[in-house]
Amino acid sequence: MAQEPLRTDYAGELAADRIGDTVRLAGWVAKRRDHGGVVFVDLRDVKGIVQVVIDPTEIPAAHELRMEYCVSLVGEVRPRMEGTENPDMPTGAVEVGVTEITVLSASDPLPFMIDDRADADELIRLEYRYLDFRRAPMAAALRARGAAVHAMRSAMADGGFLEVETPTLIASTPEGARDMLVPSRLRQGEFYALPQSPQLFKQLLMVGGVDRYYQIARCYRDEDFRSDRQLEFTQLDIEGSFWTAADVQSTIETAIAAAVKAVRGLDVSLPFGRLTYSDALDRFGSDKPDLRFGMEIIDVSSVFAVTEFKGFGGALDAGGVVRGINGGSLGLSRGGLDGLVADAQALGAKGLAWLVVEDDGTWRSPIAKFLSEAELDGLLAGFDAKPGDTVLLVADTAKLAGAVLGSLRLQLGRPEGHEELAFTWVTDFPVFDINEDGSLAPAHHPFTQPVSLEDMVERPETAIAQAYDLVLNGSELGSGSVRIHDPEVQAKVFEVLGISDEEAQSRFGWFIRALRYGTPPHAGFAVGVDRLLAILLERESIRDVIPFPKTQRGIDPMTSSPTRVTDVQLRELGVDLRPEVKAKLAKEAAED
Amino acid sequence: MAQEPLRTDYAGELAADRIGDTVRLAGWVAKRRDHGGVVFVDLRDVKGIVQVVIDPTEIPAAHELRMEYCVSLVGEVRPRMEGTENPDMPTGAVEVGVTEITVLSASDPLPFMIDDRADADELIRLEYRYLDFRRAPMAAALRARGAAVHAMRSAMADGGFLEVETPTLIASTPEGARDMLVPSRLRQGEFYALPQSPQLFKQLLMVGGVDRYYQIARCYRDEDFRSDRQLEFTQLDIEGSFWTAADVQSTIETAIAAAVKAVRGLDVSLPFGRLTYSDALDRFGSDKPDLRFGMEIIDVSSVFAVTEFKGFGGALDAGGVVRGINGGSLGLSRGGLDGLVADAQALGAKGLAWLVVEDDGTWRSPIAKFLSEAELDGLLAGFDAKPGDTVLLVADTAKLAGAVLGSLRLQLGRPEGHEELAFTWVTDFPVFDINEDGSLAPAHHPFTQPVSLEDMVERPETAIAQAYDLVLNGSELGSGSVRIHDPEVQAKVFEVLGISDEEAQSRFGWFIRALRYGTPPHAGFAVGVDRLLAILLERESIRDVIPFPKTQRGIDPMTSSPTRVTDVQLRELGVDLRPEVKAKLAKEAAED
Repeated sequence: MAQEPLRTDYAGELAADRIGDTVRLAGWVAKRRDHGGVVFVDLRDVKGIVQVVIDPTEIPAAHELRMEYCVSLVGEVRPRMEGTENPDMPTGAVEVGVTEITVLSASDPLPFMIDDRADADELIRLEYRYLDFRRAPMAAALRARGAAVHAMRSAMADGGFLEVETPTLIASTPEGARDMLVPSRLRQGEFYALPQSPQLFKQLLMVGGVDRYYQIARCYRDEDFRSDRQLEFTQLDIEGSFWTAADVQSTIETAIAAAVKAVRGLDVSLPFGRLTYSDALDRFGSDKPDLRFGMEIIDVSSVFAVTEFKGFGGALDAGGVVRGINGGSLGLSRGGLDGLVADAQALGAKGLAWLVVEDDGTWRSPIAKFLSEAELDGLLAGFDAKPGDTVLLVADTAKLAGAVLGSLRLQLGRPEGHEELAFTWVTDFPVFDINEDGSLAPAHHPFTQPVSLEDMVERPETAIAQAYDLVLNGSELGSGSVRIHDPEVQAKVFEVLGISDEEAQSRFGWFIRALRYGTPPHAGFAVGVDRLLAILLERESIRDVIPFPKTQRGIDPMTSSPTRVTDVQLRELGVDLRPEVKAKLAKEAAED
Repeated sequence: MAQEPLRTDYAGELAADRIGDTVRLAGWVAKRRDHGGVVFVDLRDVKGIVQVVIDPTEIPAAHELRMEYCVSLVGEVRPRMEGTENPDMPTGAVEVGVTEITVLSASDPLPFMIDDRADADELIRLEYRYLDFRRAPMAAALRARGAAVHAMRSAMADGGFLEVETPTLIASTPEGARDMLVPSRLRQGEFYALPQSPQLFKQLLMVGGVDRYYQIARCYRDEDFRSDRQLEFTQLDIEGSFWTAADVQSTIETAIAAAVKAVRGLDVSLPFGRLTYSDALDRFGSDKPDLRFGMEIIDVSSVFAVTEFKGFGGALDAGGVVRGINGGSLGLSRGGLDGLVADAQALGAKGLAWLVVEDDGTWRSPIAKFLSEAELDGLLAGFDAKPGDTVLLVADTAKLAGAVLGSLRLQLGRPEGHEELAFTWVTDFPVFDINEDGSLAPAHHPFTQPVSLEDMVERPETAIAQAYDLVLNGSELGSGSVRIHDPEVQAKVFEVLGISDEEAQSRFGWFIRALRYGTPPHAGFAVGVDRLLAILLERESIRDVIPFPKTQRGIDPMTSSPTRVTDVQLRELGVDLRPEVKAKLAKEAAED
């Protein structure tokens, strides 16, 4: 079995200490320059690039090398000629004088250049994902993802957490996002579902006494593609018994800090800050506030308590608020300011008032003339406004004012990229969301423990849950909660949600039954790994940190999946395409 | 957020050094003994069990405790009364005198006892898997699996391997086992497939320059359930570029040794032995030989080169062999020996000759009288047969003799359980299997590198592949190969397999195209994690090392998956049940 090794060294690791050594390298032709008598090749392998020099009079094959040929070579490490060292390359002090070269594999002409620029069309990059991996940005993303996941796993294992694999062929429990279904061949007419999360299984592990669980879990969500989502995604999933929300949060902080260290090489400051859901909405107009910048929403309703200005007075009389942000020195033209008004209206505001502080401390604004001196002074003080600052005001319901100002705040203040990292916990989420028809839906999921059972029953609209999100730079990274461990509490939640006993039994009966066997108090969390990596690596899309993603339409341009399958396959599964689908496919086939 | 901790200590960790300390524990009532004035409870948590003592005159609730109630308690650690220490328990020197106890969660009466015996019916254990987890054997299996997987990951990371997540919604490439399919909602009429392995994707990672890849990957196989398989299973999957089969094997050995150390606490001896496929068949009648015992198959054809005995001579004349095993001192009655003959015939042998060595060194056998002195002596020498030994002979084709003797060998010699661990590599597998109709099929998969291209084209039936299996105690743990990296070689393989260019393009076109862009030589392997754990833990079924397995019929008795789904769900996916399936379901519903 003994065989010549295909390499003795990595190209990217050669340095001056190896000068004089004969090495065997293997890698790809990243660049090739034919300088009259001699051919220079940048040889790339997984560790980096080294310059190799070939004398075509000795090795005629040098002329045949093309971009991205895969080669193996033998040569001597030698210092570069004086003046040709490249201090920007780790291997820039040396080159390899080649004595022997073998083309292991030729390459067709490339569909795009293998370089650091990402200007190739994303569809082409996805179609040739394997070539995209050779580009430094994608190679770095793969390495960073591997390092981050490894760091998170190590943090969890060091914390005494047990990795447990939960099943991915499970029972469909229709709710929230749609399940992806897998027809059963052995039981035709029945289907497995792919899990939206390991939620119920990890809770059963707690019932089973596992105590501390974690998993880097593949999950599935068949939503209409929007806002940069994928059908399959990965989460760090944890659950523990006999612990508190604070324990969960510090565990997650440790894991996140390990990931940041692995990717960015820096120590994030722990613990992360905390904001209640209600504060987050009041101050930032969002339950996932971007805390990299201030520009907080300020309530100036009290300034206008006795105002003559109907635009504000009317809103306040109706139980609303007057709130605003100090956008700082925006220096916007009248047209720019009008654009902000239009943006606010597009978000549902009846209007947006803008006020600019002049150099002399007076206000320039279409509404200034309607406001009293005291009100104008109140605004100056309330927003700590300096000459040049622009203040934007919305008078409306608290909810709408928050939504509009939160959006304008991001538009005006949000930094580009993700160089800075601002983590925060958002806590004390409501138990229920209120649907447009007035009915209640679980804000989190129906297994979340309310802070007060009495509140939940008596005042469900405002009841608070033991639920918390982790937010980074204005993106939700994950969410968790203390779970219900008492079957009576669980029954109450279903009751408030208007889910009958019968319906609860048919949808979650197997889970509710488990709660009847000495279920410990437990809590947990899940972090979206794709989103975390995209932010840490400052990539615009999670597709740039997923090795083999689908497009927004759910297609893999490389393999063309999803694909049609054979009649035999369908027959074995006991299913058939609907007549209208068959007709559509036949029409498409005819057009091809 | 500050909250009283629900425990200060683990019950299972208390020892004499904590005597005098007040502790808060949380766990389950594993046993309860009402001894007149005082109640003894074995409190179990994830770390073990401690005895707690409750005085019901102080704490009347003591009488209400029932099996598997989940409780939190405060008490003082104190020495057990002299003479009541239990040296078999890690905590056996102490007990906890309870001053306060809270029932966190009651338990309904149990469907089976939470103890070490596995005598509960497996279906019931699966239905209440969460209670099964509280039993020591299942809890140990979960811990061992977590530890083994963690150890393998660490070994791979330490070796410089990068974990990369490959997709699980892929294109269906019908071949071998059936794909499990997932209908696409956005592209009705099209389907994703769940991967049978990450094979092609990990090869693309190599094309992409990843160099060293690993993943603990979930895979799917829709076979008819047989021989202890599951629809979803887990494998340690690796691939590397610019390395040899020997490199792959030593990497896998390191990972396996780490898993053995984690589970068994012992160092396996490395490297594992090696057998060629052809030797394995000749000597053990199996390509997954159990090497925990000898009883090798011995070829005694030369003894019968000029035999008068037609039973042997005829087989030899037809190009066959005479082979046998020395079963040792079986001490079988005539009836027992006849049973072996029947077993051999059931396996396809025309007959089985048995010969027992008498105390005086002569043979007792129905065929002894047909054999010459020289032949009888030749058998004695060939099998190193001692008085009392039973030799079993088959005269047939080499293939059939091997199959029959290999099976008898296991039947007669195989040890129970898996205390001993006998690993071996089986190398040099054939490139092709020959179907019953004489056509060729890939023995491994069609991307396996032949040792000699010329051999493969000229003599495909006997050509050897660079393919290797890892075998433990007679079970195949995994397999791997050097892959084809040259598109011309790949085309030749398809040609020999009788796959037209067109068919190859339609089935694997996207993969074959990738080979045209400077593909490095690469090789890899996959180890079945479930099987490895079952053997290391000496469990009869892989179901006992999978947290939430399905039954052999693909059913989860806990959640009843697979389940029927709604018409809305089906309609959204563009599929419908076939009329005959609908009729079957309607009939079943009517019978309910």
